[in-house]
Amino acid sequence: MAQFNMEDHPHRRLNVLTGEWVLVSPHRAKRPWQGQVEKVSEEKRPEYDPKCYLCPGNERIGGHLNPKYTEPYVFVNDFSALLKDTPEGEVNEGLFQAKSESGICKVICFSPRHDLTVPEMEVSEIKKVVDLWASEYKSIGENEFVNYVQIFENKGSVMGCSNPHPHGQIWSNSTIPNEPAKEQVRMKEYFEKNGRSILADYVSAELEKKDRILFENDHFVGLVPYWAVWPFEAMIVSKRHVTNLLELTEEEKMSFAAAYKELTVMYDNLFEVSFPYSAGIHQAPTDGEEHPEWHLHMHFYPPLLRSATVKKFMVGYEMLGNPQRDITAETSAQRLRDLSKVHYKHR
Amino acid sequence: MAQFNMEDHPHRRLNVLTGEWVLVSPHRAKRPWQGQVEKVSEEKRPEYDPKCYLCPGNERIGGHLNPKYTEPYVFVNDFSALLKDTPEGEVNEGLFQAKSESGICKVICFSPRHDLTVPEMEVSEIKKVVDLWASEYKSIGENEFVNYVQIFENKGSVMGCSNPHPHGQIWSNSTIPNEPAKEQVRMKEYFEKNGRSILADYVSAELEKKDRILFENDHFVGLVPYWAVWPFEAMIVSKRHVTNLLELTEEEKMSFAAAYKELTVMYDNLFEVSFPYSAGIHQAPTDGEEHPEWHLHMHFYPPLLRSATVKKFMVGYEMLGNPQRDITAETSAQRLRDLSKVHYKHR
Ligand SMILES: O=P(O)(O)O[C@H]1O[C@H](CO)[C@@H](O)[C@H](O)[C@H]1O
Ligand SMILES: O=P(O)(O)O[C@H]1O[C@H](CO)[C@@H](O)[C@H](O)[C@H]1O
Repeated sequence: MAQFNMEDHPHRRLNVLTGEWVLVSPHRAKRPWQGQVEKVSEEKRPEYDPKCYLCPGNERIGGHLNPKYTEPYVFVNDFSALLKDTPEGEVNEGLFQAKSESGICKVICFSPRHDLTVPEMEVSEIKKVVDLWASEYKSIGENEFVNYVQIFENKGSVMGCSNPHPHGQIWSNSTIPNEPAKEQVRMKEYFEKNGRSILADYVSAELEKKDRILFENDHFVGLVPYWAVWPFEAMIVSKRHVTNLLELTEEEKMSFAAAYKELTVMYDNLFEVSFPYSAGIHQAPTDGEEHPEWHLHMHFYPPLLRSATVKKFMVGYEMLGNPQRDITAETSAQRLRDLSKVHYKHR
Repeated sequence: MAQFNMEDHPHRRLNVLTGEWVLVSPHRAKRPWQGQVEKVSEEKRPEYDPKCYLCPGNERIGGHLNPKYTEPYVFVNDFSALLKDTPEGEVNEGLFQAKSESGICKVICFSPRHDLTVPEMEVSEIKKVVDLWASEYKSIGENEFVNYVQIFENKGSVMGCSNPHPHGQIWSNSTIPNEPAKEQVRMKEYFEKNGRSILADYVSAELEKKDRILFENDHFVGLVPYWAVWPFEAMIVSKRHVTNLLELTEEEKMSFAAAYKELTVMYDNLFEVSFPYSAGIHQAPTDGEEHPEWHLHMHFYPPLLRSATVKKFMVGYEMLGNPQRDITAETSAQRLRDLSKVHYKHR
């Protein structure tokens, strides 16, 4: 029998942050595709769209008026999934277990310009988004009933985004949601055993190996995690062990903004299309406890697989069994690394 | 403050099978939708399509010829994600953990007829699919290196299905995939504590409450689970505590086939469209151990939310935090239950 190697043979990899496994089938990358083809909408957008409910000065659904904002602008979601005045209560009846849940949901417009996206913004403009994330993390987290603040961005209609104006969201909860809760268990275990952050050790190991690194700057590293599920999944991790956005220096926030831009430019350049993804920050809960085990990082989950129009479907086997991918993390990293650093629209 | 009630207030519900929570935001069902609109392809298909690689007598990619089959037909997937002759090996280097994985992947054509789908097939024809599932579960599971057999169906292009010929798949693994592994932990815990299957107790409780029941026949129940994530998620569960397909009597297999049809007819009737979903069977591993804790069931995860063209996106918050839904399981069950039992194409 041939010797096992990860470029040719099906294998599983462990996500050390969640304790879950991903199935990797590298030999399957060449299967033909006759399935669904996504729409690519690359119409040129105007700087200001009078019909966009996120543009400065426009009216939102429900009659609220946006100010003529010139910097990143945040407001409470008009259709919040979580509300702050939810009555307390629970169902505790054997196999039927439910609990009321409070929170606050907000929307952040990244820029007044309707026609931009993060990879097309200036780093100094993105830095203002990072600043607002930090101050929102603080002020939302200060509410007694908020124990976790989830900052995220859905980009592209294929990722359920219903307005192309550059924006993200913040949903906050009383309880810690499943994903950060899983990470917290593993981070804590590692921190208690080794006295160091698991992600600090992981980033050092990756910087030595190099094959999954996308880029690094003074304070942040962009990489395709060993256990990536989505074809071009990536992570931005701070080099220094910080538990949340508030611990970042001004210089570090500028580095974070630069990393956010660098990764999204790579993404756009991959298929020369405005690359869809969901992305979000995992950081320490705001539950009033010390969380020395936490290490600030941002996940990027992009669905595209082969081209601007063919995505990876996380369906039958993935929903009922296990996430599965066709190309290895190393191949994806190589492809992203080899791209021009200049945005394709500006060449 | 008002009193907490689950029809009006945001809350979390526990999935007792996995131990994970879902966020329910019932008040959010009325938010407007300006996002992605799915294509509906309702072209009438011929009974036989000379270009379909699943039709009887046709050539598949790779040159294999399908027999002129007249009953459900199974073959090894030409692009298997898992292979039986994978060399053994592993990576065991601190935070880098990987293991080679063996398995067998198969495709099952449900019918020779290119134009049918499960809800349009006769129960006696679907029964033959159930028979084949059972015999495949047995023969695949008898391989030393196969410890779990995952039977599933991806239906509709929006669920990554690339051929409308009615078919499903079977992927089998050496290790137990994440989802059944999580269920096994909870089932075992409950069985050891109570001496009964958790799903048997759950189904009895639901049959008493009635609000989430879709239908029942002599041996199976169709219901929207209390902790449903997808808008019209459902489960088919055997009333009798059986651990796998091989324990079903002929009569029970007929009941299972009838339930599969009854649920999918409801689905098609909801938006009068061939309703997409991923579905699959969870049952005892084939690892040679006794699994008295296991209870055979089938999950259905359909993506549509409001109409044939607007689906639920499990994106940003859902990927980074927690699954979230807008209508309650009770409302979904009510809507499905109220539909005609006759397929809309045959009215
Ligand atoms: O095997 P198929 O039909 O080519 O592929 C489909 O089902 C598989 C199993 O759920 C998924 O991995 C693929 O992403 C999906 O497109
Ligand atoms: O809040 P939006 O942009 O209307 O909605 C989008 O993001 C939410 C949070 O990830 C999801 O729950 C929705 O399914 C998605 O369409």
